[in-house]
Parts: sequence; C-alpha cells; structure tokens
Amino acid sequence: MTAGQGGVPDDGRRRVVIEAVTPSVDGGRFAIKRVVGDVVRVEADCFADGHDEIAVRLLWRAEHEPEWSSVSMTPHAHGNDRWTASFTAQRMGRYSYTVEGWVDRFATWVRDMRRRREAGQDVAVELRIGAALVAAAMARAAGEPSDEERLRGWAIRLADGAVDQAMRSALALDPALLETMERYPDRSHATRFERELALVVDRERARFSSWYELFPRSTSPDVERAGTLRDVIDRLPYVAGMGFDVLYLPPIHPIGTAFRKGADNALEARPGDPGVPWAIGSSDGGHTAIHAGLGTLDDFRALVSAARGHGLELALDIAFQASPDHPWVAEHPGWFRQRPDGTIQYAENPPKKYQDIYPFDFETNDWPALWDALRDVMAFWAAEGVRVFRVDNPHTKSFAFWEWAIGQLKARFPDLILLAEAFTRPKVMYRLAKLGFSQSYTYFTWRTTRSELTDYLMEVSQPPVSESFRPNLWTNTPDILHETLQLGGRPMFEARVILAATLAASYGIYGPAYELMEAAPREPGSEEYLHSEKYQVRHWDGHPSDSLSGLITTLNRIRRDHPALQSNERLEFHEVDDDQLLAYSKRSIDGQDTVLVVVNLDPARSRRGTVSLPLERWQMDPAGPFQAHDLLTGLTYTWRGQENRVRLVPGKAQAHILALRPLGITVALESDR
Amino acid sequence: MTAGQGGVPDDGRRRVVIEAVTPSVDGGRFAIKRVVGDVVRVEADCFADGHDEIAVRLLWRAEHEPEWSSVSMTPHAHGNDRWTASFTAQRMGRYSYTVEGWVDRFATWVRDMRRRREAGQDVAVELRIGAALVAAAMARAAGEPSDEERLRGWAIRLADGAVDQAMRSALALDPALLETMERYPDRSHATRFERELALVVDRERARFSSWYELFPRSTSPDVERAGTLRDVIDRLPYVAGMGFDVLYLPPIHPIGTAFRKGADNALEARPGDPGVPWAIGSSDGGHTAIHAGLGTLDDFRALVSAARGHGLELALDIAFQASPDHPWVAEHPGWFRQRPDGTIQYAENPPKKYQDIYPFDFETNDWPALWDALRDVMAFWAAEGVRVFRVDNPHTKSFAFWEWAIGQLKARFPDLILLAEAFTRPKVMYRLAKLGFSQSYTYFTWRTTRSELTDYLMEVSQPPVSESFRPNLWTNTPDILHETLQLGGRPMFEARVILAATLAASYGIYGPAYELMEAAPREPGSEEYLHSEKYQVRHWDGHPSDSLSGLITTLNRIRRDHPALQSNERLEFHEVDDDQLLAYSKRSIDGQDTVLVVVNLDPARSRRGTVSLPLERWQMDPAGPFQAHDLLTGLTYTWRGQENRVRLVPGKAQAHILALRPLGITVALESDR
Repeated sequence: MTAGQGGVPDDGRRRVVIEAVTPSVDGGRFAIKRVVGDVVRVEADCFADGHDEIAVRLLWRAEHEPEWSSVSMTPHAHGNDRWTASFTAQRMGRYSYTVEGWVDRFATWVRDMRRRREAGQDVAVELRIGAALVAAAMARAAGEPSDEERLRGWAIRLADGAVDQAMRSALALDPALLETMERYPDRSHATRFERELALVVDRERARFSSWYELFPRSTSPDVERAGTLRDVIDRLPYVAGMGFDVLYLPPIHPIGTAFRKGADNALEARPGDPGVPWAIGSSDGGHTAIHAGLGTLDDFRALVSAARGHGLELALDIAFQASPDHPWVAEHPGWFRQRPDGTIQYAENPPKKYQDIYPFDFETNDWPALWDALRDVMAFWAAEGVRVFRVDNPHTKSFAFWEWAIGQLKARFPDLILLAEAFTRPKVMYRLAKLGFSQSYTYFTWRTTRSELTDYLMEVSQPPVSESFRPNLWTNTPDILHETLQLGGRPMFEARVILAATLAASYGIYGPAYELMEAAPREPGSEEYLHSEKYQVRHWDGHPSDSLSGLITTLNRIRRDHPALQSNERLEFHEVDDDQLLAYSKRSIDGQDTVLVVVNLDPARSRRGTVSLPLERWQMDPAGPFQAHDLLTGLTYTWRGQENRVRLVPGKAQAHILALRPLGITVALESDR
Repeated sequence: MTAGQGGVPDDGRRRVVIEAVTPSVDGGRFAIKRVVGDVVRVEADCFADGHDEIAVRLLWRAEHEPEWSSVSMTPHAHGNDRWTASFTAQRMGRYSYTVEGWVDRFATWVRDMRRRREAGQDVAVELRIGAALVAAAMARAAGEPSDEERLRGWAIRLADGAVDQAMRSALALDPALLETMERYPDRSHATRFERELALVVDRERARFSSWYELFPRSTSPDVERAGTLRDVIDRLPYVAGMGFDVLYLPPIHPIGTAFRKGADNALEARPGDPGVPWAIGSSDGGHTAIHAGLGTLDDFRALVSAARGHGLELALDIAFQASPDHPWVAEHPGWFRQRPDGTIQYAENPPKKYQDIYPFDFETNDWPALWDALRDVMAFWAAEGVRVFRVDNPHTKSFAFWEWAIGQLKARFPDLILLAEAFTRPKVMYRLAKLGFSQSYTYFTWRTTRSELTDYLMEVSQPPVSESFRPNLWTNTPDILHETLQLGGRPMFEARVILAATLAASYGIYGPAYELMEAAPREPGSEEYLHSEKYQVRHWDGHPSDSLSGLITTLNRIRRDHPALQSNERLEFHEVDDDQLLAYSKRSIDGQDTVLVVVNLDPARSRRGTVSLPLERWQMDPAGPFQAHDLLTGLTYTWRGQENRVRLVPGKAQAHILALRPLGITVALESDR
C-alpha cells in the first residue's frame, strides 16, 4: 500500500512538506533547459504543521558528481510559503536538482526566546532546552574541532545556573552562535521532494544563434557545373560577413535514382536532373557517405575547418529516411515495412505517393539495431566535428527513439545542438522539445498579423513552454515561400527578417533566395518556390545592388551587440494605436539593455501611431526624457514620457530598432552605425 | 539509466504518447474527489509520430477489483490532440484510472483505403494488407467463435484476387467489419500513461451538507442545570426543523481540571466553571470517554439514533490534544515532549502559554504507537455510528499522519466525512484537502466585500483547487464573531447566511448564537463572543419572534429543492453596477436549474443596480422575456433580456434568490413558498 492508501511511511517524523517545485516540465518527467552560465532560480512551496520554523535548502549536482551541492533557500518577500534559491549552471551536460526541508528546532527556539525576553518571562527551563540543542549540534560538529569546542562552550554557558538569566538569554541571540548552529543543522527528519528534477545545460548557441541555409550544389560560380563543398568554402566569407554563426546544409549524401523527381517536382526526372537531396542513399552509400558530386570526406573536413575559421559552425541535415537505392534497403530489409507483394512500403499520404522515399519502420522487431544505426549516423558526423544538426521531420519518427538517442548522444557530445524541423501540431512540437531537441522550427512563417505574432510569441517565450522549447524563427525555407513574401515586395522581406531577428534569440533564413528576394511561387496559391533548389541546381547572382545583405548584416551586428536580443525571457509587447504597427521590447537580465522594436506590418502604406511604454516598471522616469537610438539608421531621438509617436514609411523605414537609454549616456562599446 | 538519460525502454515500438491527463492533483500524487453517481470526465493529450490513426481508451477500476473497466476515448471536437471519455463513480471508496493508447493500423488502413478509392488507385496490394490485418484480429478473437468465423470470412474475401477490386474495397468500408475489428484491437505496443491516478468517491453529503453546531451543555431547558445529551435529543426537532442535515457537537469528553480556564477566558477558573471542552481528558477518561455531566455512552447511542430519525447526522469533534489530566499523560509520557525539568511541554505561542493543553509530539520515537492510538480514537467513534468528524486544528498535527490515518479509516469506513478546521495559510489548507479531508473551513468569514467574495469563491470552486478542496462556509464559529456581524444588525446576519448557503454546496452556522443574532464581542476589536460557550454554560431563549430560524428554514428548503445549489462547479459571478450588490448564479449539471442570487452587502442602505446575465451562453433568448421567481418571497418577476434592474432594501429584502425559467413554465415539484 502506498501512503495515500494508508501505508505506513518509513519515518513518520518527517514533518516538512515540499510541493510545487519550479521550474519543471510535466512535473519532472522531462528536463528543463538552460545554457552555461545561466542562473537557475528554483522555487518551492515548503511548510510544516504547527508553528515551528523550518529550514529549506536547494540541492543540485551535475551528472556523475557523487555529492550534492546545496544552498539555503529563503522565503519570498511576499510570503505564501514560497521559498527560493538559485544555482549557476557551470558546465554543459545534465544536472539534477531537488529541495530538502526540515523543522529547525534551534531557529524556533531562538525566535521564541526573543519573544519570551521581550515579555520578561522566566526562561530557566528554556535555556536548558537551548543548551541541549547546542550540545546536539556539537556532536554533529565532531569533524570540526574548533566549532565543536565553541559549541561546547555555548552549551555550558547557556545551562550554567550560576550565571544571570538575562546574560544567558542574551547569549542565545549571539549571531556567532546562530551562524555556527546553521552549519550543523539536525536534518535527521528532513523531507526530500519526491522527484529529482533534471536540467540540461547547453552551450550558449543553443539559445542564441543566427542560421543561414544554402544548397551546396547551387554555389558554383560557373554556370556550366554544379557547386561543391569547395565552392561552399569560397562562399563562407559572404555568409560570415553577414554575421551568421550557423551554416546549415541540406543533406550532402548520395541521392537515389529510383523514382527520382525532376525540376519543379516533376514525377519523372529528365537526364541530368540532380534529384532531391532528402532521397538519401545510392550504391555510393547512405547517411555517412558524401555525394560524389559535392566532394570527398576530406573536402568536408576542410569545409568544417574553414567555417570554424570564419566563426561559422556547420549544421548538417539529419533526415532519417532512405531512397530505394540506399544500401540499408538490401542490408536490413527488416528496418522497412514489407508489403505482401514483396516490395517495400514507400512513403505516402494517400492518395499521394512518394515512391522515391522509404520510411523506416519504427515498429520493426529489429528496432534495437535500427535505433543503434540511426544514433550512429549522428555520432559519426559529431565525431567529424559537426555539433549542430537540423533534424528533418522528427515527428514522423518514434518519440521514444528521440528521447533515447538524444540522451545517448548528449552524454557523449554535450555541446550537441539539435533543431527540430517539425511543422506539425503544437503538442507534438512541444513533445519533441521535451524529449531533448535544443531548438524548434515554429509557426512564425504563418503568423503575420499583429495579434497572431503577439499571441504566438507570448506562448513560446513563457513557461511552461519556454522551459523546454526554444523557438528558431525562419523567414523562409526551401519548402515555404509565404504569400506575404510573394506579394509584399522588398518592404515585406525587410519586415519579416527584422521580426525574425528581433522577436527570438534564434532565427534563420534560407538564402540566397531570401536576401535576393526570390518571390515567385511554382504556381499561384502554392508556397513552393518556382524552380526550387530542392529539385534542381541554381546559379545565383553574386551581389546585386538591391540585396538585403546589408540590412541582414546590420541586424546580426545589432543582435551581437545587444544582450537583450540574445534571449526570449523578457519579451513584451506594447500598445500602439495602429494595428499594422507591432511594438515589442526585450531587456537584458541585468536591465541595462533595453531594445524597443516597432515594425510596420503593412508593406504598402505609411503608418503612424503612438507607442505606450511601461517606463515605471522599467525603473525609468515615467515623465522624463530619454534617448531612443535607432540601431538601423544611427539616428537618435529624444523621447519623453510613456507615450511617443512613430511613423514608418515603406521604402524608407519599415521598422525602428531602438536602444532606449537615459539622456546623455553614450555607449562607447557599441558598434553603432 | 532512465530513458531521459539514454536508457533503452523495454519496448521501443510503443509509439503513442499520453500526456496531461486530467483531472489530477499534483500530477497524480493525490486523489481527486467525487461523490457516488458523479460522472468523471477524463481528458488526455494523445498522439503518435507520423500520420497513423490512433485509438485511446480510458481505464478505471475500484480498489480491489482485479480487472480494469474501459471505454473508448474520442478526440475533442476542436482537436488539438485532446481526447476525452467518462466513467461513472458507482460506489464509495478509492478508484484508479489511467489512459492507454496505441497505433490503430486497421483504422489507418480504412482511412487510406477511402482516399485511394476516391482517387481511383489500384489497391490490389492494399487489399492484401487489409486482409492480413483482419486475419490477425481473427487470431485475437479466438475465444469468440462467431466473431472469429466472420473475421475469417472477411479476410478471405478481401484477399480474393478472383473478385473485383471495387467490390473488395467496398467491403473494406463495411461498418460491420469496422465494428468487429474495433473489438479486437492490436494493443501489443500500447502505451499506458505513466501514472495511475487516484479518485476517492464519497457519499453525496461530502459535497452537499448543511451543518449546525451547538454546545450540548447549553441545551438545558432548566436554568438551574447544564444540558445533557438527552437535552440534545429534545433539541433535534428544532435543528432538523430548520432543515440542517449535520449536527456538530464540540468535544463531549471529560474535561481536565489542571489550569482550567474560567468564564470569558479567565486564566483561573472559579469553582463550578465547566472548563473548555477542547481540554480533553481527566481521571474519567480521554478521547473515547464521555463527560459524565453530559451522560453515558448509552445516552450517546440514543442521541445518534434519534438524530438519524430526524434525518440528522451527528458530527463529533476530533481534537488531538490532551489536558494535563488525560490518562495518556501518565500512560504514554513519550507521546509528549519532555522538558529538562521533568515537566511536559504545554502548548504555547510565546509569550502566550496554554498550560491546560498538552500537544502530542509527532516527532516522538514512539510515533507508530501514537499514530495507531489516534486512528483508533476515530475508529472507535466511527464504530459507534459517527461517520462525520470535524477535526480541530489538523494543521498542527503532522501531515504524514493525516494521510495515513485517513487512508486507513476510509478503507474501513468509506462513508467517513472529515471536515478540516484549519484556519491557516492557503497552501496548508489545500494540502490537508489533498491528504484526504473531505471538506474544509475557509476564509469566508473574513471575505466581506464584493471583490473579496468573488475572488475567493472563484479560487476554491475551480480546478485545480476544487479537485480536492471542498469549501464549507461558516457564518460564525464559537471563536469567530466577525466585526460585520457585531455592527451590521439583522440585515448583515441575513446577508451572511444567505451568502453561505448559496455560494457553496456546504455551509454551517454555530447556533443558537447565529439565529438569535448574538452580536456582542468580549471586548471591542475582538472576534471572541462575550460570555463565550467555550468557557461557560449558556441558556438560550427558546423561540424569540425575531429569530432568523424562519429564513434559515427557507434557505435549507431552497438548497434541497435546487440541484444548482448542491455543487460548486457551475458558480459564476455577474456584473452589477453597484459594488455593494453581489450577483452570482449556479446551474445544475443538466442546465435545467438556474438559480441567480443577488445580495445587498450593505446592511444600512437600499441599493439598486442592473444585473447582466450571459443568457446566450445559457442557451436562453438574449432578448426575450423569462421568469425570475424569487424563492425567498414567492413573488415572480418577468425579466427581459440580459440586463435587469434590482433593488434591495435592508429590513425588507436583503437578497433575491431567483429561479430563472422560460415564461409559462410552472415547476410543480418545487415546494415554493
């Protein structure tokens, strides 16, 4: 019988209750996420029966550390039995944390002694009780001779009937005694919270990252041939020059020929069509091989190294599916679902068939070997120095697999970052985040109105979602050219990349389609690109004069300069009296950096409105003047009070990104334009 | 290693995820509460990877039942991966419930077959796949020969290449096949929610009860002597006549003489002072003895039986503390805290001392024996037919003890109802409810303004609080004569009892002090009664003409007649444009009974205002006329539309209690005035 059904607990003398420990995900079923250096603030409801004082401490330890570290928790200023303390996540990997509490008889005795003294009561017996408590602590201090000796002295003096009561009760309040007693608490009936909670500590890039996606085969400077990994090396200065820090490549593996798709998703490829990079595997190899047209493993290693030299980290695509030509199809037919006619089940969404793709069968009896093989694909590339993966459609692979695989991989490569590309239902996306994905694609691309953007960003930037889900906002992908971009022209391209780069700490663009403002869909009403790089090699104009690369370079510099933009915790939206103007701010954790963004969502018309700011809450003079320094233009405005007017004119300024500061402050460190 | 750390699950083929199962308390750590006959609606987030159909079922079983009952869950109309189903709590006691889900390959196949047919695809292979699924179900139907035979037939026909494809694919959609297949699902890779959730089913009185408290020793019709249990029997017609169903008596045990308190809490009793009933125990006995002045165990049995005859249930006070004269002090000195001078620690709140009371020491090494003894006190009275306890200050006894003791007692006496008298901090009160207390005293007595009443009642009548906490609103207690009653005169006494009786399904009054409108405090600023019955015997006037007994009788009749008032689930507050008018409604679960209450909180002035009602949400014509039948006066008003005016005049009408009905409906069953 459990306690709830009348079972006897092992020690009925544990009187402290610990409830509602936060942060936690699903009551502790999953880990919360932080990055190295983050201060993890833990809170808990703690109380005991009766009126005794309690002591509470926060316990934490990194995985494999034998001992808990601990710190005293303190009650909230506003009471209500809420206690709090913090610890710093000092290194990558998993941590456990929990809360422990006990009745503090000595603190209770001191509190009561103070009241008794004030009331002038006789405390002869109480002094003897206190002496006994000190003597018990003395025994617990046995390993520390000097403390032991001092406690012995206090115990003797408290109980010494020959000494005046008033002197002895003054001794009871001696801060040195209290401080020493606190170090030797009686935890014999301490209560531990029933669950050890888990924390995964990532490196900073898991929280703050700027992604650029390109197709290697489209990087050739020579229109007569397709691009290679060596060509990508030549493109690194361009990408790094815009200020990105992650360069994501679609799959670089051999591409199957069976049922290969042609240009613009034609059912049949023409000779020379290169196929879809996600149709992985041919006689040349599978998920750990490199497409011969792109180069060799040595080329790849050169790219990884060159990218690193440019401050860029390479992200590979993990797409767990096979072309019919993948070596595993023959080697491990059991990893695929067999059809009664002896063929293998291809992907489909009836009546649509994707015969160039075989999904893995996660219900195979051979699942342990399949899991190992898939994990080993990621381990292979991680061992090659790739520590960022963009995972293709993780929601079509089993959740249990991801939890296991990510746990295994991060135990070996704690710096691993996995971005989940799951454009699916919200609870499925959140589940993947809970299972361990470091970042997630979002619905941002389809959130275009003020209320849609506000509601969605508030949902993903606050607990409980934000404890495990880190949004990565993409302006576009090879699959998604949103209607707003098809129709909105340059002003909309400006607005959307400004939104992505400032609403969330991580964002990405698929280029050069984005900065070159590629806007033509395959057909009206479609979100697919015309002449999509998924199906054919493209050759992009080098540096046309109307490229958005300048704006993007500025945005990435602003993001690096402003800690406010490097996390999502302190995002808030502000009122503006024009519903095509979206205003929001982010603040750094120390409150020193405040960035206000106002975006005109209307690509066609000039918009003006009054922005209302919570200056008082920000501890700024609600009536006084302050600087609003526009980080996009370098212009500085003097604003005054909580309400200020803005005007945004498409073609001239689609947005303000304003650093707000007290008057007269110049921030010399900042690389202002 | 756990799964989260990379451990391998026992079966990696379980693809369904089950999350966020509700209702639950603290993630399943504690039981939810319902009463017999309640429909328990369970919801869960359920989904799988990919696009396969899933099947989900709700499982439940009463304690000691070997097998789960189950019912299919269905997805919410508004989607978002939320599934729901219900079961009925048919008997008192503990239940477990949980949720199970699995990938439904056959349902997926049927769905896809429909799409393939519409697209006119060749389905030769798919028909063979379906045949195999049916054949597998046939094997699972082995115990049911007729189903087995029918499934065999379907399997053969589906796979029969000699028959036209169109005919066979029509067969795939045969409802009889679907229905039969649903009864033999393939649950081999089913996922069970990780926790079995607990439900405690009480009898209806745990939810809906009307309490009356009196001091037996004050029931004597003869001013020359104190009252007895036999006198209480004579008072039963009076209490039952007002419509109460629980009669609660303060402790009836022998009272200690050491440090006995005198009248009006005098530190020293005068000869003849009867003492405080909560100073339990003397040489005559302890918690299972009856005070000789009140009568014998036979008298008590006669009272229990007579009360039952009047439809009244006796509630005893469980006050786990001892007077210095309690037999346990000598028999079990280890159950109390010893002081260094050899005395026993009395209760105190320094500098205040309560030397007539010894608390039990829940940190005693002899705690198992103490726990047994305290449980046995309750078991003793339960065996005497007392199945309602009002527990005095449960928050000063260990929480672990209550969880264990209530679990043990309710296993033996599932009809037990325990009311927690814990006037303490909110989280402590809620914890006691989670541990198993059936009902709880509240802050109602101190919630007097419209916003205080609204906020507090919303907090306690909604999840998560309401899953375990059942408020019992008391107008007054022997300890609490609120200032509003001291100053507000009869209108305030009317208002407060109307609020208590209609805001919550359970309420209580301490009488005859309440109905006789006793309003004098011991001293100005005190909430204690002058000449409190806690310290002295009182003799009350029989039936003065200005007693509130008539109003109370009406209130209790209204409560019995109106299911809306018998639970707290559908309480909502409504706008009124006068902040001294409080308007709220309750509705029965079937929507047939709607009671609107409007109370004038101002005891001195007439108040008028417009009440706004959500008629549309209540599926009433938002513009049309309807009846508002005043259950207090018998008058019927015709109201029209969502806004209607009320006027409440102290001395004439302090409140309306209005049954709202479509025009022209007469409810013959109702005992209208």
